[in-house]
Amino acid sequence: MDPLDQVIQLFTRLPGVGRKSATRMAYFLLKEEASYSRGFGQSIMELKEKIHSCSECGNYTEEDPCRICSDTSRDGTLMCVVEQPQDVLTIESTGEYRGFFHILGGVLSPIDGIGPDQLGLGRLIDRVLNLGVSEVIIATNPTMEGDSTALYIQHLLKEKEVRVTRIASGLPVGGDLEYADKLSIARSLRSRQSLDQ
Amino acid sequence: MDPLDQVIQLFTRLPGVGRKSATRMAYFLLKEEASYSRGFGQSIMELKEKIHSCSECGNYTEEDPCRICSDTSRDGTLMCVVEQPQDVLTIESTGEYRGFFHILGGVLSPIDGIGPDQLGLGRLIDRVLNLGVSEVIIATNPTMEGDSTALYIQHLLKEKEVRVTRIASGLPVGGDLEYADKLSIARSLRSRQSLDQ
Repeated sequence: MDPLDQVIQLFTRLPGVGRKSATRMAYFLLKEEASYSRGFGQSIMELKEKIHSCSECGNYTEEDPCRICSDTSRDGTLMCVVEQPQDVLTIESTGEYRGFFHILGGVLSPIDGIGPDQLGLGRLIDRVLNLGVSEVIIATNPTMEGDSTALYIQHLLKEKEVRVTRIASGLPVGGDLEYADKLSIARSLRSRQSLDQ
Repeated sequence: MDPLDQVIQLFTRLPGVGRKSATRMAYFLLKEEASYSRGFGQSIMELKEKIHSCSECGNYTEEDPCRICSDTSRDGTLMCVVEQPQDVLTIESTGEYRGFFHILGGVLSPIDGIGPDQLGLGRLIDRVLNLGVSEVIIATNPTMEGDSTALYIQHLLKEKEVRVTRIASGLPVGGDLEYADKLSIARSLRSRQSLDQ
């Protein structure tokens, strides 16, 4: 195959990139200096060699354990459970959370053959108990699979001295009742909070 | 810099890619098999080594002259002048044109110091005369710079036995008068065509 077509085709495999954007990207590389595409290609080639999963939390990292797991200034009583490594970035960007993380790498989904063993939920429970965590915040997505995974983890920790919480779900800030879906409105009603404290 | 951050930053330099998309792309690479990112990186690295400008038309190509310039079944009486290599792809995709191309690599723009010499307009005229072209179709963008470049090329070819035409500009097919800009409407009025032939 023509090297240009090949690069275009490889770009289209990226999420959110169609044929037109991929073509634009490839032509952009051709127009830029050779040093850019050389460095870009090199970095992509080496990415998976340099970045591994943290043996503690499962996040992507260059060193092991990762920067978060080895940060002693963090609040060791809190553990936030997320589906994907990129969810850590998202939660970190809020500046609201200073505890540790645990990345499941997915959610329970019997149809896809993903059960508690595939998600390594036993390892999660071990970490929670070994680290002396007092609250596990489950931040899986507010989907059916995310919710059942949350319930299952709560079930596993029921007998332990650990509080299990779930991130709130409802209307997005700045959202509009008129355009919100029924499920989100229903959930925001069910999870309503008292304003007088 | 962290290799993951580095890849994210390199992705953001691509056209139409913001921080969020770049992050998604980098995490996607990490999740995919190593062979994908290795092949992807390799292809990007080698792109500028393998792809060059065609010494005839200026299009990007692996062999020189390019596939279009060396295609003897093409109509040698037509030459289409475009701004960028990717415009060739766009015009080819319509299936409406079977002549040759000439890529300017830009448009006249005195402010940016791009004059007739920088665009190699002399070479265009030489090609037109040497190949015995009878019609030059100027397909630069319908912008001020694209229009003046078209006029300038027409001026250069005025004394020669060559017809110079410009692609039509007006309302896009499927468009709506209500939402079209004034300039496009004005031009579509000026370039109106008789329906009874």
